[in-house]
Amino acid sequence: MDKKILLSHGGGGEESNQLIHELFYQYFSNEILLKSEDAAILTTKGNIAFTTDSFTVSPLFFAGGDIGKIAIAGTLNDLSMMGAKPLYVSCAFIIEEGMDYNDLEKIVKSMTEELSHNDAKIVCGDTKVVPKGSIDKIFITTSGIGEVVTPGISAQNIDEHDMIIVSRDIGRHGATILAERESIDITSNLSSDCKSLWPVVKHLLDHGIKPKAMRDATRGGLAAVLNEWAVSSNICIELDEEAIPISEEVQGLCEIFGFEATDFANEGTFILALRPEQVDKALKLLHAFQDDQSASLIGKVTTKKPKKVILNTPWGSSRYLDLPKGELLPRIC
Amino acid sequence: MDKKILLSHGGGGEESNQLIHELFYQYFSNEILLKSEDAAILTTKGNIAFTTDSFTVSPLFFAGGDIGKIAIAGTLNDLSMMGAKPLYVSCAFIIEEGMDYNDLEKIVKSMTEELSHNDAKIVCGDTKVVPKGSIDKIFITTSGIGEVVTPGISAQNIDEHDMIIVSRDIGRHGATILAERESIDITSNLSSDCKSLWPVVKHLLDHGIKPKAMRDATRGGLAAVLNEWAVSSNICIELDEEAIPISEEVQGLCEIFGFEATDFANEGTFILALRPEQVDKALKLLHAFQDDQSASLIGKVTTKKPKKVILNTPWGSSRYLDLPKGELLPRIC
Repeated sequence: MDKKILLSHGGGGEESNQLIHELFYQYFSNEILLKSEDAAILTTKGNIAFTTDSFTVSPLFFAGGDIGKIAIAGTLNDLSMMGAKPLYVSCAFIIEEGMDYNDLEKIVKSMTEELSHNDAKIVCGDTKVVPKGSIDKIFITTSGIGEVVTPGISAQNIDEHDMIIVSRDIGRHGATILAERESIDITSNLSSDCKSLWPVVKHLLDHGIKPKAMRDATRGGLAAVLNEWAVSSNICIELDEEAIPISEEVQGLCEIFGFEATDFANEGTFILALRPEQVDKALKLLHAFQDDQSASLIGKVTTKKPKKVILNTPWGSSRYLDLPKGELLPRIC
Repeated sequence: MDKKILLSHGGGGEESNQLIHELFYQYFSNEILLKSEDAAILTTKGNIAFTTDSFTVSPLFFAGGDIGKIAIAGTLNDLSMMGAKPLYVSCAFIIEEGMDYNDLEKIVKSMTEELSHNDAKIVCGDTKVVPKGSIDKIFITTSGIGEVVTPGISAQNIDEHDMIIVSRDIGRHGATILAERESIDITSNLSSDCKSLWPVVKHLLDHGIKPKAMRDATRGGLAAVLNEWAVSSNICIELDEEAIPISEEVQGLCEIFGFEATDFANEGTFILALRPEQVDKALKLLHAFQDDQSASLIGKVTTKKPKKVILNTPWGSSRYLDLPKGELLPRIC
């Protein structure tokens, strides 16, 4: 069947109602959403975390995920990074007239699957359909609300002697999207790291890890997160270049295209700043929980050059790892 | 100056940082936003209301408003309609490469102005820039969180004998966008009703009005709201056609283009379901507060045809007012 999304599906009338009932309410079904009020009424305890992200990734479907998976994981990961349990999600679709209904359904299904990993639900939404040519297929904006279970995690909290850990090998999402766009086939083992982080974060917190700062390395990659932290906490971060985990596939693509893996986007990889005495325990927990040994200690916090990130090479030389500059990869997420 | 938005402004690196600091932080400045964390940490009391909407309106600037004003008013009005005081807003921009920086600044300024009418603030956001042709100029998605001050307002609450009031003359936003697109000049008095409703809603609540249901008549207009209410509360709504306030300008445009004003979108006009004894007081409050006499009692709730809206004409005949169908006006909001 060749069902298409029509302008009338976004008009606010009968066809909109149909789309909402037959697609969104079927998959996202929950008591709050089905009330169909102007706003969802929620009961929360204590402090809440609130965040938003738009997703414009191209292609819509890629190795390891799709725009639906990333729209849930991406937004909810921002809550997890603040020590907040993801609870409620809003979801706004902007769809191009003529989009394949089956593709939309695949995306919605994938969102449902990803919500389940967070035990979170979509409680309100919006659907706009715009005339052909006003948008490229579909963009999704999600916002999330979470309950802060571990307060005080902040980019401003990092002090001298703190240690920097990365939760797995970096650059997979950026490399995957690049490979898909360039139709590169040699990288059959390459797939995006796109994943909800709440389960692993909860595991760390439940086992007594107290992150001083935590951030997923999305657009701008490892380089952007560490530079932002160096400025926010007025510290110097010194990295051991050799310790940064990068898979062969990602390294290979970087060499072909002249990119740095440290600038590449990740969608399920995070950086932790920890007190030194927590490092071994955190690494053990990460290795066991993720069934993968790539989580690594990659650097430490010093006072050498405040607001700067320094990369120490295995040959004894060093250079600044700067904030990425220029176009990088548009529509990466 | 001819400054343009570049792809690099959305890359997550240095240029993104610049745009955020030089534009968004300047206008939206507040303590929570400036923390620049992955998510905003908020303290709320009691139940909260949560809602989201995407805005794709074309043209970006129109008589009575622009996409920035509507992106704030539209989302926060959904909170007000649930008896919730708007507090916190998230804002996600998707911008076409090459957009005029000055236009973006005008939009951001207009958002700031509209936030002030709600005493609300933007606490988190996102900016994506997509290659030329992937989107038409700029789409904005906002989500809002409010504190429920008057609980129990719901589309499911309406009973027989309740009365239906509209807060002002209908159809202005839809008619204005239509006139702008068709470059019609004869309607110089016509401008959108786009407005934040929290001030007038607060005035009603503060003076003892207890709305059973309340909804702003956006896409799908008066017809969509009343049909949704009829279904949600399993009631019949009978309208007095002559009592529905429609300005001459809007009526004129409807006649030229064959539209019904009852299907036209509004962006600062709401419908109230009230107990009969509250009608006079509510109308007096609306007339005085808005300095406009168009708020009217337009109908009543009966059991004649459950789930249906009936329009009684001045000539004694009647017909169903159905949910709008078909394309209406795309990109109206």
